[in-house]
Amino acid sequence: MSRVSSHPNIGTGKSGRTIGVLGSGDFARSLAIRLVCSGFKVVVGSRNPKRKAGLFPSAAEVTFQAEAVKKTDVIFVAVFREHYSTLCDLADVLAGKILVDVSNNTEVNHHKESNAEYLASLFPACTVVKGFNVVSAWTLQSGARDGNKQVLICSNNQEAKRTVAEIAQVMGFTPVDMGCMSSACEIENIPLRLLPAWKIPILLALGLFLCFFTYNLIRQVIHPYIREQKNKLYKIPIEVVNTTLPCVAYVMLSLVYLPGVLAACSQLYYGTKYRRFPDWLDQWLQHRKQIGLLSFFCAALHAVYSLCLPMRRSHRYQLIETAVKQVMWKKMNIWVEEEVWRMEIYISVGIIALGLLSLLAITSLPSIANSLNWREFSFIQSTLGYIALVISTLHTLTYGWSRAFDENQYKFYLPPTYTLTLLVPCTVILAKVIFILPCIRQRLLRIRRGWEKGRYVKFVLPSATGEYSSGETSSNV
Amino acid sequence: MSRVSSHPNIGTGKSGRTIGVLGSGDFARSLAIRLVCSGFKVVVGSRNPKRKAGLFPSAAEVTFQAEAVKKTDVIFVAVFREHYSTLCDLADVLAGKILVDVSNNTEVNHHKESNAEYLASLFPACTVVKGFNVVSAWTLQSGARDGNKQVLICSNNQEAKRTVAEIAQVMGFTPVDMGCMSSACEIENIPLRLLPAWKIPILLALGLFLCFFTYNLIRQVIHPYIREQKNKLYKIPIEVVNTTLPCVAYVMLSLVYLPGVLAACSQLYYGTKYRRFPDWLDQWLQHRKQIGLLSFFCAALHAVYSLCLPMRRSHRYQLIETAVKQVMWKKMNIWVEEEVWRMEIYISVGIIALGLLSLLAITSLPSIANSLNWREFSFIQSTLGYIALVISTLHTLTYGWSRAFDENQYKFYLPPTYTLTLLVPCTVILAKVIFILPCIRQRLLRIRRGWEKGRYVKFVLPSATGEYSSGETSSNV
Amino acid sequence: MSRVSSHPNIGTGKSGRTIGVLGSGDFARSLAIRLVCSGFKVVVGSRNPKRKAGLFPSAAEVTFQAEAVKKTDVIFVAVFREHYSTLCDLADVLAGKILVDVSNNTEVNHHKESNAEYLASLFPACTVVKGFNVVSAWTLQSGARDGNKQVLICSNNQEAKRTVAEIAQVMGFTPVDMGCMSSACEIENIPLRLLPAWKIPILLALGLFLCFFTYNLIRQVIHPYIREQKNKLYKIPIEVVNTTLPCVAYVMLSLVYLPGVLAACSQLYYGTKYRRFPDWLDQWLQHRKQIGLLSFFCAALHAVYSLCLPMRRSHRYQLIETAVKQVMWKKMNIWVEEEVWRMEIYISVGIIALGLLSLLAITSLPSIANSLNWREFSFIQSTLGYIALVISTLHTLTYGWSRAFDENQYKFYLPPTYTLTLLVPCTVILAKVIFILPCIRQRLLRIRRGWEKGRYVKFVLPSATGEYSSGETSSNV
Repeated sequence: MSRVSSHPNIGTGKSGRTIGVLGSGDFARSLAIRLVCSGFKVVVGSRNPKRKAGLFPSAAEVTFQAEAVKKTDVIFVAVFREHYSTLCDLADVLAGKILVDVSNNTEVNHHKESNAEYLASLFPACTVVKGFNVVSAWTLQSGARDGNKQVLICSNNQEAKRTVAEIAQVMGFTPVDMGCMSSACEIENIPLRLLPAWKIPILLALGLFLCFFTYNLIRQVIHPYIREQKNKLYKIPIEVVNTTLPCVAYVMLSLVYLPGVLAACSQLYYGTKYRRFPDWLDQWLQHRKQIGLLSFFCAALHAVYSLCLPMRRSHRYQLIETAVKQVMWKKMNIWVEEEVWRMEIYISVGIIALGLLSLLAITSLPSIANSLNWREFSFIQSTLGYIALVISTLHTLTYGWSRAFDENQYKFYLPPTYTLTLLVPCTVILAKVIFILPCIRQRLLRIRRGWEKGRYVKFVLPSATGEYSSGETSSNV
Repeated sequence: MSRVSSHPNIGTGKSGRTIGVLGSGDFARSLAIRLVCSGFKVVVGSRNPKRKAGLFPSAAEVTFQAEAVKKTDVIFVAVFREHYSTLCDLADVLAGKILVDVSNNTEVNHHKESNAEYLASLFPACTVVKGFNVVSAWTLQSGARDGNKQVLICSNNQEAKRTVAEIAQVMGFTPVDMGCMSSACEIENIPLRLLPAWKIPILLALGLFLCFFTYNLIRQVIHPYIREQKNKLYKIPIEVVNTTLPCVAYVMLSLVYLPGVLAACSQLYYGTKYRRFPDWLDQWLQHRKQIGLLSFFCAALHAVYSLCLPMRRSHRYQLIETAVKQVMWKKMNIWVEEEVWRMEIYISVGIIALGLLSLLAITSLPSIANSLNWREFSFIQSTLGYIALVISTLHTLTYGWSRAFDENQYKFYLPPTYTLTLLVPCTVILAKVIFILPCIRQRLLRIRRGWEKGRYVKFVLPSATGEYSSGETSSNV
Repeated sequence: MSRVSSHPNIGTGKSGRTIGVLGSGDFARSLAIRLVCSGFKVVVGSRNPKRKAGLFPSAAEVTFQAEAVKKTDVIFVAVFREHYSTLCDLADVLAGKILVDVSNNTEVNHHKESNAEYLASLFPACTVVKGFNVVSAWTLQSGARDGNKQVLICSNNQEAKRTVAEIAQVMGFTPVDMGCMSSACEIENIPLRLLPAWKIPILLALGLFLCFFTYNLIRQVIHPYIREQKNKLYKIPIEVVNTTLPCVAYVMLSLVYLPGVLAACSQLYYGTKYRRFPDWLDQWLQHRKQIGLLSFFCAALHAVYSLCLPMRRSHRYQLIETAVKQVMWKKMNIWVEEEVWRMEIYISVGIIALGLLSLLAITSLPSIANSLNWREFSFIQSTLGYIALVISTLHTLTYGWSRAFDENQYKFYLPPTYTLTLLVPCTVILAKVIFILPCIRQRLLRIRRGWEKGRYVKFVLPSATGEYSSGETSSNV
């Protein structure tokens, strides 16, 4: 309903107040439109009102800056930081009014002080409130229905903050209190953020990819070249990549569940849940979703790569060559039952693992995750996740079969790749199995319900155990 | 914007009221934080205020339970059910106040009476309201933006219910009236729900899978073993599964549209839409989405399995063997035009069917479904759905080709699997075709507009036909 | 939580007002239920109140139409247009009241005037407000949580519009002002819309498909038949389609970025961003998302088709034949290094391109797009998009390899298909490269910040450059 969503909401009731807007860029315009439609009287202050009047809704009054400022107490400053100084001649009329700084920067921490603080320093007689910068001109016009409804607000003056918060709410946004002016800098950096939650997981994935890639390269390409002068370079684009991707996917998947295990360990060790985890662990716990999704992405790519194998010329040539050889050597039967079974099993197991992972990925979509209650979410993400981990382990083991014990597989004494990948996942699975043992499980549950080791002995029924704590905290594990 | 969404909304205006919180667990803490940020005065009652004060926002007053209770009329009881009794000594001070029971159980119907009813029985002098238990401590803190905004409320006292509803609304939640105390039990079971809508469809899918699996096992593995002592066990992991999955997917897809057909039949038969459907049909109609998604899941797995076929060793061996045989028998041309055509057609048709199914699956994502108007939704889910059903039927028929008439295909007199699967889908398609016939179609439309058989003759322009009924009702069919 | 969401919200406070409802169809019923639960007094007017009373919530008063109308000022007319005339005898009692027209049509522009205008013409003494028709009876009952929250309202009377808007808000909807009565027609057409945004892109895709399909048909099927009487018809279902799909996907992808390039050009040429783009370009810019998704859909199908190639009988036969030939001609080595490399490379490049495209598709899901700030969204959609375009170009080039220079490839003097597809994408990429050149880039940025060519010379620091304009405008490019 693009046409429709381009109509802002009707403000109800609060229409008395007059709001001022300084500036006449896109943002000023969208702001004015939204304010008018939310039932406010709007006065726009511009250098040359005549030329700009056309840009604004007729309901808004466009006049000279000084005029506009006189008519209202709340003024949105929709001007670039570089031009704040041009407002200084308005200092007297602005005195005592609320200035809303909606500006953004072009790069993170571009200036030593935030725009809002700079504005405040220019107009000491005004109360400056930072806000609305996270909203885009487009969101302002199209209505909060699309895009993020939140408006982050901060100021040193509680009253001013509340006033702006009310205006934001009438405009159909959700005001969010970010505390005092000092957090203005943070607010101004938000629109400049570039997927911060993904940086670490992506670096992790790339790191793992490089390691395994070089390892496989040595085993599959360099070794045969050095030992038998065989040129296997053609394997690099697909085969080497395709033996690397599953390793990354598999290890990443286990790294999704490792931090939970560690958290549980620390809780068991310290016998309380009130002790904060070290920062690196907190970080890790918060990035599990991203790590999991990257793991799924690699697994999916691995599937596609594998499916492409029989398409390749090289595969075709090898087939024909073997066929021809068969004839030359008059051999009829080349059927190796074990090989057949190995492949049938690890392929089917692999498909099941991929199916489970895709379920995990789908349920982590915001719109679906929000429709689940916590128990459902944890069942899928934790229980199904562990099952997926176990099945991928089976996939790896059946793929490896007995190779680990065949010394020909040790190129340059390097063990087959799959053996390396097994390390972390198996530890995680083992730990999980231990946590499921009744004795440990009971203790963990008690701790997560608020029970603390030291204090338990003191009194039989301490308030702590009597208090209600939601299950969510255990979603960390 | 995790950092941001961890800041609750700013309450606007309503800040007069004082709210009490008993308990100091995670939930009590999150509750206090959210209440404070929503502009309420908060008094927390704890056994040992000193030790607990640190856990709460400074704006909240932490004092002894009795003290806290005296200061307010609305008290959130954030204490485990097992410890309600410990509050009994507060009975006098609590008298006449509103107690909000936010507790949850650890298992469905754990106790014979709901926690809220139990609390009410302990404090007959108080008005107990059940609510907020479906919200998680995490949602309370992170703000309603993530997770479910709804707060289910029930109580025998309308006034108390309204009061709590208002508080919930100020806190940024959507209060939902669940009627009187008797539904407290139901509300308490909601957080314990585990995908209830999926149970039946999943069981259905598993049932179908088992039936078809055994059937195919007999035909593909057991029969050759008994008749020709051939060991085909290696077929089980992939080939048998891969002939089973499409059957499940195909039958499930038809089961999505069968209930609609039945509903239409009953409407035509009884000549009214006001007659309730039998419960099993209602159930079925409500589970169509899940059945459809499972059908898509099976279809997708079937696709992946099929794509894996040429990767397998067995496939490779067979290829080479045939090649060698060719040479031995000096045969050059092995091209069978019919076989080629059959395969080219049923593969391409299959891909198209899968493409359509994936469209259906995507449009059933909450975020996308909500952006469609009813006509668009029904066009995709109903019209495209039927087209997908027809195309899958073509896929099945072209796959089967003439096998149904080749007696060698009747292992143990069992007909080829695909013939069995055709039954339901074809009935559904046939029925749909009949409903499209003008005469029937007209009658159905009239019925769905409110027309009723018996009454029509009575008067020419009855109010019933004159009244507006939305198209949604026909979304059942 | 289907059970729950079937409970409407609790209205808070505004419970004084009495609302009337004429009609007793599904919509009237749902309306009454929602109004009651939102805390309004509801009076339903029906022809035979006795028979209908049962259909409505007990809290609602069901009486004769005239009675009901007398009791209230705001009346929802939930009656089919064909039966408006039956209300004429109520004209006197209705005089001076607000009538809310909630009706829908069965087909677009069915009548020359909108239902609402027709109602207004019948009751000149009443103030008619159009609204609520975009909401479904089902949404009314299940609460705004599912489905679209917006309620479009229009009327010639501002006061009446505001009253209805307030009612809508209390009911939990988001009222959207659509201006005066003249837009009633548009509002009534909204529920009849059928994916309007998709029409053009789908036609475009079909058109491209047909062109490339015929072109490939001539080259792959007709040419060999005419020249060597070879029957290659079997190639049509899969091979021809599979050479057509990538062309469509590739060209469509470039068409996503072409309009942005054109927009930038016009901005550079006219030296301002305030000049409106021609309509066709506006249209195009708005359809980029759909074009992109269709491009991804074709690419995905292309992938599946390609993966199916080795499954086919024809492929198998060809393999065996070559194998047999090898033997006959006593040839051992058939390995062509170049062919191997070409295939390994273009397959792997293709997979990477598909991976990127899938990321683009996923991030265009509403629920995910809304969670990104503008910079993140544009990074993924623009930057990653261009990378995907470049990689697909590599895929095409490596696929084509040296064929463009091999005259045998020119069937009927027709160049290989891939050469044709390269045209548009390469232009787009080239243009993008030019725009990245510092000189051009600076100018573009200045223009998008509000700078205008002509005016710049006049004064050094014009207000226009001083005004804040959001980055969104550049999301067009």
